[in-house]
Amino acid sequence: MFTAKSIGYWIALDAPVATERIARLGYDYVVLDGQHGFIDQQGLLAGLMAIELAGCAGLVRVEANNPTPIGRALDAGARGVIIPLIDSASDAAAAVAAARFPPLGTRSYGPMRDPAGTRPKPADVNENVTVVAMIETPRALASVEEICAVPGLDGVYIGPSDLSLALGGAYPGDPAIADVFEQALERIRKAAAASGVAAGIHTPTGEVAARRLAEGFVFATISGDLSHLEQAAAAHLDRARR
Amino acid sequence: MFTAKSIGYWIALDAPVATERIARLGYDYVVLDGQHGFIDQQGLLAGLMAIELAGCAGLVRVEANNPTPIGRALDAGARGVIIPLIDSASDAAAAVAAARFPPLGTRSYGPMRDPAGTRPKPADVNENVTVVAMIETPRALASVEEICAVPGLDGVYIGPSDLSLALGGAYPGDPAIADVFEQALERIRKAAAASGVAAGIHTPTGEVAARRLAEGFVFATISGDLSHLEQAAAAHLDRARR
Amino acid sequence: MFTAKSIGYWIALDAPVATERIARLGYDYVVLDGQHGFIDQQGLLAGLMAIELAGCAGLVRVEANNPTPIGRALDAGARGVIIPLIDSASDAAAAVAAARFPPLGTRSYGPMRDPAGTRPKPADVNENVTVVAMIETPRALASVEEICAVPGLDGVYIGPSDLSLALGGAYPGDPAIADVFEQALERIRKAAAASGVAAGIHTPTGEVAARRLAEGFVFATISGDLSHLEQAAAAHLDRARR
Amino acid sequence: MFTAKSIGYWIALDAPVATERIARLGYDYVVLDGQHGFIDQQGLLAGLMAIELAGCAGLVRVEANNPTPIGRALDAGARGVIIPLIDSASDAAAAVAAARFPPLGTRSYGPMRDPAGTRPKPADVNENVTVVAMIETPRALASVEEICAVPGLDGVYIGPSDLSLALGGAYPGDPAIADVFEQALERIRKAAAASGVAAGIHTPTGEVAARRLAEGFVFATISGDLSHLEQAAAAHLDRARR
Amino acid sequence: MFTAKSIGYWIALDAPVATERIARLGYDYVVLDGQHGFIDQQGLLAGLMAIELAGCAGLVRVEANNPTPIGRALDAGARGVIIPLIDSASDAAAAVAAARFPPLGTRSYGPMRDPAGTRPKPADVNENVTVVAMIETPRALASVEEICAVPGLDGVYIGPSDLSLALGGAYPGDPAIADVFEQALERIRKAAAASGVAAGIHTPTGEVAARRLAEGFVFATISGDLSHLEQAAAAHLDRARR
Amino acid sequence: MFTAKSIGYWIALDAPVATERIARLGYDYVVLDGQHGFIDQQGLLAGLMAIELAGCAGLVRVEANNPTPIGRALDAGARGVIIPLIDSASDAAAAVAAARFPPLGTRSYGPMRDPAGTRPKPADVNENVTVVAMIETPRALASVEEICAVPGLDGVYIGPSDLSLALGGAYPGDPAIADVFEQALERIRKAAAASGVAAGIHTPTGEVAARRLAEGFVFATISGDLSHLEQAAAAHLDRARR
Ligand SMILES: [Mg+2]
Ligand SMILES: [Mg+2]
Ligand SMILES: [Mg+2]
Ligand SMILES: [Mg+2]
Ligand SMILES: [Mg+2]
Ligand SMILES: [Mg+2]
Repeated sequence: MFTAKSIGYWIALDAPVATERIARLGYDYVVLDGQHGFIDQQGLLAGLMAIELAGCAGLVRVEANNPTPIGRALDAGARGVIIPLIDSASDAAAAVAAARFPPLGTRSYGPMRDPAGTRPKPADVNENVTVVAMIETPRALASVEEICAVPGLDGVYIGPSDLSLALGGAYPGDPAIADVFEQALERIRKAAAASGVAAGIHTPTGEVAARRLAEGFVFATISGDLSHLEQAAAAHLDRARR
Repeated sequence: MFTAKSIGYWIALDAPVATERIARLGYDYVVLDGQHGFIDQQGLLAGLMAIELAGCAGLVRVEANNPTPIGRALDAGARGVIIPLIDSASDAAAAVAAARFPPLGTRSYGPMRDPAGTRPKPADVNENVTVVAMIETPRALASVEEICAVPGLDGVYIGPSDLSLALGGAYPGDPAIADVFEQALERIRKAAAASGVAAGIHTPTGEVAARRLAEGFVFATISGDLSHLEQAAAAHLDRARR
Repeated sequence: MFTAKSIGYWIALDAPVATERIARLGYDYVVLDGQHGFIDQQGLLAGLMAIELAGCAGLVRVEANNPTPIGRALDAGARGVIIPLIDSASDAAAAVAAARFPPLGTRSYGPMRDPAGTRPKPADVNENVTVVAMIETPRALASVEEICAVPGLDGVYIGPSDLSLALGGAYPGDPAIADVFEQALERIRKAAAASGVAAGIHTPTGEVAARRLAEGFVFATISGDLSHLEQAAAAHLDRARR
Repeated sequence: MFTAKSIGYWIALDAPVATERIARLGYDYVVLDGQHGFIDQQGLLAGLMAIELAGCAGLVRVEANNPTPIGRALDAGARGVIIPLIDSASDAAAAVAAARFPPLGTRSYGPMRDPAGTRPKPADVNENVTVVAMIETPRALASVEEICAVPGLDGVYIGPSDLSLALGGAYPGDPAIADVFEQALERIRKAAAASGVAAGIHTPTGEVAARRLAEGFVFATISGDLSHLEQAAAAHLDRARR
Repeated sequence: MFTAKSIGYWIALDAPVATERIARLGYDYVVLDGQHGFIDQQGLLAGLMAIELAGCAGLVRVEANNPTPIGRALDAGARGVIIPLIDSASDAAAAVAAARFPPLGTRSYGPMRDPAGTRPKPADVNENVTVVAMIETPRALASVEEICAVPGLDGVYIGPSDLSLALGGAYPGDPAIADVFEQALERIRKAAAASGVAAGIHTPTGEVAARRLAEGFVFATISGDLSHLEQAAAAHLDRARR
Repeated sequence: MFTAKSIGYWIALDAPVATERIARLGYDYVVLDGQHGFIDQQGLLAGLMAIELAGCAGLVRVEANNPTPIGRALDAGARGVIIPLIDSASDAAAAVAAARFPPLGTRSYGPMRDPAGTRPKPADVNENVTVVAMIETPRALASVEEICAVPGLDGVYIGPSDLSLALGGAYPGDPAIADVFEQALERIRKAAAASGVAAGIHTPTGEVAARRLAEGFVFATISGDLSHLEQAAAAHLDRARR
């Protein structure tokens, strides 16, 4: 799904009207956060409809590496899933299996909104589902080459906050671990390239996204609605007070 | 409720976590839009709780000049109501009556979240409820002095988009009517001052709010979450593509 | 619907599981408060199902004397409607019309959950819908005899809080107006009896309900979930601290 | 919006996934019922998104001839509104005004999902909003020619159940009034043709829709999800028991 | 719970009014799909109330073989649970344990809507809870005799779509595996009969249900609301176009 | 978080207005029941806001010992989590890890409403999160000393109903096991004291809470809204009938 230099946006709020507007701006994909976001099952469905309506690709970062939320996101029409807290190749393989119908995987068949309802062969559906493993724990970093080699995995995605803490940072972005952090990114990017899977990263701004894409990341997500809205409201208040 | 140069923020999205963050930034008040916003009854309650939690004053722009939504907003804990599309002094008087318990008005007594539950006299509650009439139609503009003189009214609030169309603009902000528009604003501000009610205005940015407050408006609301979020996401995408 | 000494319970919370338990206790009817309660359209449906499941009669106190909420409550399966803030016989006649299909009234036909779906004649449905007018304003009190004489009206219902304020009380239950209040009750009860409609009253406790029924009221509602829960939690805390 | 022989489907259930599937079948339009249906504000938004996603035109039958629900449906992206219980030309004119921005009408400007957000002139939006008046009361029938002549009205729509009762039928479809009913339909169709507005009718099945379109109606809606689902489940049970 | 030739209906939509109507048609049971259906926690509660109101038995197909959704369904009043993707006798035993209070199982005690609230002994509740294991994976088929022998299991239920894919079908109903599929059904039915548990099967129509019951299945569910509604709307459109 | 003789209240209903009123009564903490209660994700957020608004500490009894609901409760602003059905020290250690950021645990970083958004070091957040393990199974009782010794655990909490059944009681409160039950309580209390963690217990009334606190329990929760409301409604009905 990710072509070179894909740019996405990250949604944590259950506000489909806002999600639709953002998806219409030209982003390559929009991700609904089912882990830390405040979006319930009905919200995921409405959000995916809003994104699709905008002609954009909707992904879901599921709450956990578990077949239930993975299946629900895909049944609701997600083009792909981002799986948090992957620790090992076997974790990644389980995620892949949960997202693909037999014989590739073990996804349960219950076509609701996805193309399986209209296509003759579930196997064809499998080709159009993207599975991305988050690399954000010490164990994941230690086995990133094995994770990238898992058959059927489409991408790896760096969660910088969790990865920072995992690397010993006192807080996300802690400069004390900046070198280690950048080395980790390079290792992940190289592992992905070696296995032919896309490497992506979560970023706070368009500027950082541009820099990461220039470094060789295939996709970068800008995050996201909750913090950008807070920042905008703060900036307007500041200007109003002058 | 409005002291000199009060600055508010305008919420159209049912996203209480975002509303709370914005209310914590230092705004004097936050308005939940029950007319054009996508916020249902449960969302108004959650939004008012979020605003109050931030130590901020929550208002509701009700869907219409009707006792039902006015009473519901106040029962849910709103500190005041902004009434759209007021056309006349009698409209304004009806709004005032709907927001005040007897003998000042005809608000029905059903204390749920408002202070009436703990105070001995509903009349005391009346003192703490703010009623604001929107001036955004030709008829309202023509009788703004009478509207401002309605006993119990606390403020008037200019809706620039509807007022622009009302004044013959082809679209909000149409420069063809800029002079007429500014004269209308001045007339409204003077009428308010003459009657001792607060004049406020809806603005798109902190800069415009600052300018309007400098011109003499007592309160200005910056609007709002939906468009600011869209603008922020557009700006980040633009920077990511460079 | 009201036989002699009917006892009801008043629900302001959208908590169908609690509503069902209460309806199973043996109350003759349970009222869902659509005016001051925090119950949306989906909550009214769930609450009415819960009450019906308990073999109890579900009523809705609608938000206003307006055909839309009256029709919605009946479409959702309410056995009757209680209309707030009736001011005159014409108000009461409008309420009756909104709750009855032609030729008795003007209720729009859209059988969803009510018996109209299975009976041949809408006129039969009309017989099973109860319409109750609240008497809680000065104007209503002044014309209560005319209100009670409105054809098709089944009952009148006293809202003591609003009536207290209407009678000049500084707060509900103000002893300064106790005599006037009791005289008003007697007038309403007699007017109802003279026209053969049921007189009912809203009460805070079982004791007061018993007293009002002994005085001759045909039905009395005990109100309600929000305050009783608060009182119970307060009493338990008090005992826990001893 | 209605070209010759437009066929629509009627939705009363808040089930956007089903609504989307139906809208994908090839219907010219799909109507969400905000009057008798069980669809709240959030459901209208999701339903309209689902219909639009299917490349179909979404309309809303609003709860009443009132600017608030008319404005909300349009803000949420409806391509048009169907107004129940229109009684007179002035009712129809009020509906038209509520659905059009100045100078054509008095719709309040608050672009959320409609094209007003991206087009320079609200007047352009007005051209793309369809307003349909329901003819289903005795008064409407008596003044149908005047109603059809209201400037800006796009269509009239027959509600056969209410119209049957209005004409003295004991129940919808009562054969005792069949002749009078058909004459009413002809009168309405002719009045519409004379004024150049589209005449449409609510029907229970595809067969009836075909017949009505053959008679000259411009659009016919098949109603609808709740009864068709019940009928299908009944038929399957019947066959299962054999 | 299943007597000979029980016929059920399958619900995937959160539309309690439709669910109630279907449950009133005479089905022996109705299943709410918590795995592939779009029904959240509140929807399960409303759906179970609607089914119970119709005097019908409500079951829930839970999202996974996990004590949390099993307990929730039963707390909400389900008469039984259908567990997807059972792979082994130990899986089935875990499901049984999660649905029964000690000493039979490990269900956590929190009576909300189930009869435990009014009966003296949780053990009595256990007798009235039905637990059904889905047989739809290769591993389940291979150990179906052991699964059927698990103490406390009440039934097995064939999921034909997943089972088809599991057996190598390219899509549900693939004729290439028809013989193998029918042999699997026979094996499952015999295993159930040998252990005295009820064998059931998911079917698309009343006709297929009748055939399966004639073959010896004890219960058959007709599925379901989403596809039947789509089929009905398609058929009506087809007839309207003629 | 628990000081000596802390008294809490237990909420099973998604009714934030009631929750807020109860939290304002002076309870030291209020627990939202995410296991047996009928409170969804949106309800937990609203409930936690309501409790915080009252200046009270909000806890969540999560649905299971699983990082997803633990993380969600904390992201939504819970001051602590109560984990049901802990069976062993390793279970307790997993719960502690899920609730604390690295290096103390493995909680995923996604600050939404908790203080992590504004503090420089996630480690500081860890200090303010309370983790309580429920002791309510035979295995938990058998290893309660090891559980209490788990680093980072703040308290243990007795679930008397499940514990009664676990100890062989035929129903909660079965006098046949009263002695064994009291001995279990003493063992748990001593184990907690020995490890310096707080021992708490679930109680049905203020009287029982007072007794348990007198016996040495550090905190006692009175449970709860659903049963107290039912009891109050029953008592009022009883008095009304006299
Ligand atoms: Mg992360
Ligand atoms: Mg306006
Ligand atoms: Mg009242
Ligand atoms: Mg009609
Ligand atoms: Mg299956
Ligand atoms: Mg327990």
